[in-house]
Amino acid sequence: MSRSGTLYGVGLGPGDPDLMSVRADRLIRNARHLAFFRKAGLKGRARCIVDDRLHEDVTEIALEYPVTTEIPFTDPHYNACLADFYETSVERLLGVLRQGHDLVVLCEGDPFFYGSFMHLYTRLRDRVPVTVVPGITGMSGAWTATGCPITWGDDVLTVLMATLPEADLTRRIADSDALVVMKIGRNLPRLRRAVQAAGRLHEAWLVEYATMEQQRVRPLAEAGDQVPYFSTLVIHGNGRRP
Amino acid sequence: MSRSGTLYGVGLGPGDPDLMSVRADRLIRNARHLAFFRKAGLKGRARCIVDDRLHEDVTEIALEYPVTTEIPFTDPHYNACLADFYETSVERLLGVLRQGHDLVVLCEGDPFFYGSFMHLYTRLRDRVPVTVVPGITGMSGAWTATGCPITWGDDVLTVLMATLPEADLTRRIADSDALVVMKIGRNLPRLRRAVQAAGRLHEAWLVEYATMEQQRVRPLAEAGDQVPYFSTLVIHGNGRRP
Repeated sequence: MSRSGTLYGVGLGPGDPDLMSVRADRLIRNARHLAFFRKAGLKGRARCIVDDRLHEDVTEIALEYPVTTEIPFTDPHYNACLADFYETSVERLLGVLRQGHDLVVLCEGDPFFYGSFMHLYTRLRDRVPVTVVPGITGMSGAWTATGCPITWGDDVLTVLMATLPEADLTRRIADSDALVVMKIGRNLPRLRRAVQAAGRLHEAWLVEYATMEQQRVRPLAEAGDQVPYFSTLVIHGNGRRP
Repeated sequence: MSRSGTLYGVGLGPGDPDLMSVRADRLIRNARHLAFFRKAGLKGRARCIVDDRLHEDVTEIALEYPVTTEIPFTDPHYNACLADFYETSVERLLGVLRQGHDLVVLCEGDPFFYGSFMHLYTRLRDRVPVTVVPGITGMSGAWTATGCPITWGDDVLTVLMATLPEADLTRRIADSDALVVMKIGRNLPRLRRAVQAAGRLHEAWLVEYATMEQQRVRPLAEAGDQVPYFSTLVIHGNGRRP
């Protein structure tokens, strides 16, 4: 029986290629087999980040999400559809790994902090050698963009998804010193109501495309109702500062 | 009037030098003036991380914390003592910057996520040009070390300092899906009681020296009462996983 190659889950950081780690940079430049997620019809955000550093002999494996935007989260068909997608993806990667080839999977941000890689990871970790390389999270990119530290002293930081019910959002936004909210997109109007109900509208910043060319930072109060899905809301803590 | 140099606050990541960003690596290798915090009498954790990559002509500025461990946080003298230290440090850095030299300040983890750099940053940002380079946080290093993703789907993540009152710890540990607790050290017994009171003792992992040679991962239930200050407690979320 031949030995399996190693699966590398490699964090790319928030978007600026210069912010991936030295190890990630080395693994990606040397990779002969490279996989990444993308929406069908697009080049893929992760793939764009590594554009100028791929080996000339690399084989690319694009894992294209099934069209699920028309199925609500709560529909059991949504989960089944995604589970099929991950199973099929795993078989494609195993095809490469079992030939003894190492394989790099590109992960936006940090591989273990939300995201899609972990659905491959849990299916593969007992079957092939796996190494995970952490990355700078998208939220670090976002709070750096605001030009103001996110947490001081004993501040409590809460990270929320804007997909949560509005009452939960309101309660948790009121109950934390510092705050990060992700997965905003069309949840923005609901999120804004929650921030306002928590009495924190004038502390909240909206960051789009952190660390990238199109980066934009605005007070939430001045934003319209249209923002990209990958926007981040930031409320800074106010802890001890000697 | 001569032009001031630029102050770079550079995130080093969790400890493994290979995990600093490509940009951090480049800035540090080229730096002619380098500052870092340390405890008096020690080489300094940040300084150790960059050991093998300093320019031969670098001038080093060690900013040594005053001895404050005998003064409780709540004593006004504690804040005064630290404020003096930061003011003096700022004057030392300005001495270099105003000669037109760029200066790199080493920051463990991410410069805007807890830590000491931000106390220099707020004093200097209106006086000299400042650039902040985000880094992989220590907590990313810690959850990567556990071999298990920290957050899935719509999980709520809460980040707490073990220095908080026990009742606050208990309430917040019970109220979050995923959890990170830092600044543990001698607060461990109190933290363990809080985790137990929240009914989560058997989900909790303790990570020491994440990503470094001495890295150690244990269930909290099996840890003694002695851990380094820079230990991290991790409880993983259990969100949606197709």
